[in-house]
Amino acid sequence: MATQRVPVIEKIMDANDQVASMNKKKLDESNIFAINLMASPGAGKTSLILRTIRTLSPDLRVGVIEGDTAPVTIDADKVLAEGMPAVQINTGGECHLDAVMISNALEQLPLDSIDLLIIENVGNLICPAAFQLGTHVNVLIASVPEGDDKPYKYTNIYRGLDVLIINKIDLLPYISFNMDYFRQGVELLNPGLITFPLSCTTGEGIAEWTAWVRSQVEKRKSQNA
Amino acid sequence: MATQRVPVIEKIMDANDQVASMNKKKLDESNIFAINLMASPGAGKTSLILRTIRTLSPDLRVGVIEGDTAPVTIDADKVLAEGMPAVQINTGGECHLDAVMISNALEQLPLDSIDLLIIENVGNLICPAAFQLGTHVNVLIASVPEGDDKPYKYTNIYRGLDVLIINKIDLLPYISFNMDYFRQGVELLNPGLITFPLSCTTGEGIAEWTAWVRSQVEKRKSQNA
Repeated sequence: MATQRVPVIEKIMDANDQVASMNKKKLDESNIFAINLMASPGAGKTSLILRTIRTLSPDLRVGVIEGDTAPVTIDADKVLAEGMPAVQINTGGECHLDAVMISNALEQLPLDSIDLLIIENVGNLICPAAFQLGTHVNVLIASVPEGDDKPYKYTNIYRGLDVLIINKIDLLPYISFNMDYFRQGVELLNPGLITFPLSCTTGEGIAEWTAWVRSQVEKRKSQNA
Repeated sequence: MATQRVPVIEKIMDANDQVASMNKKKLDESNIFAINLMASPGAGKTSLILRTIRTLSPDLRVGVIEGDTAPVTIDADKVLAEGMPAVQINTGGECHLDAVMISNALEQLPLDSIDLLIIENVGNLICPAAFQLGTHVNVLIASVPEGDDKPYKYTNIYRGLDVLIINKIDLLPYISFNMDYFRQGVELLNPGLITFPLSCTTGEGIAEWTAWVRSQVEKRKSQNA
């Protein structure tokens, strides 16, 4: 008699990760490069999205999913005003987006006519770190006025990053911000992290960031061609 | 035969509110005025605490409870350096403090020698709004670089406030921040809210804020005398 073996599943993905995996598959099938953009409130998420759209269009079409805890469409309206498709998610007080919300939002976007998807997560440095959305990269905007000690305090979110943006560098002359101390904290958690210092107000550094985004979009298209 | 009546409890406090109520009783018994200080990351909570300590000491003794998601004592160390008692709470990734954490922290503070307790909540505009701690007032620091649209996006936290501080007003010349638009948003949610515009960097407005704090401490002492 053959010994019957109990099936062992090595790693059980939780429900969110399963849906995130389906989201990524859907994005890949549509040749879309997708960014999960995280930050504290007021670090410049919407400003960066608008700068990115203005720099990359009309070559690239950019879709945006806006996450907010309140039913306001302030940010989504700004994206629509740029002529790009946007979907607003109201989390109803929840402090982060999750993969199911994104799955629903993807249904509302014209995926066939989008090259780049930017998901603006809820303004928060804690909760979003724990929920994968199915994007290709996790990007955080740190903002100079927030201070140079944030990597030491919000370790989880820094550990999970693929790209770091340091926004509002135009305010460096007016603020006590030790860039070396900040970067040392980041390096401890996430060695060699790709970093773009920039200012959405002056435009400094935007070219480097958008060139990187463009290269990622093109790399993905050539891989899938 | 007398009709037996089923006891009806009009309002059942949840567990957190029950512990918060006990915390407030304990604070009142010790003649301590307590502040729940909330803000996004980097809005200036610790800076305001240090400014407040330096202005009010040695007349008043200030105790501080520092909430952080990571096990770092950066902020608590700064308070200790001012010669004031501080307790650090590591929430282990949780995005807010709750009344039980405060109850435990109160055990570690010399309550008989404190006039004012400032609780620095976790840097977050969403989760802390839902948890009363047992303090006498909820205070939020809004920061000019965060932008003028925050009251429209983080409505819950603005609704529950007793006092609003607008920090980093020294940066107003360098930032597009419409004070009228900001204040209109606040007024819609919380009419007549006590507001202190100030700068922890230049010190402007600190005297008005600390005078208000002092008046609250003295009012409480005279009531309980």
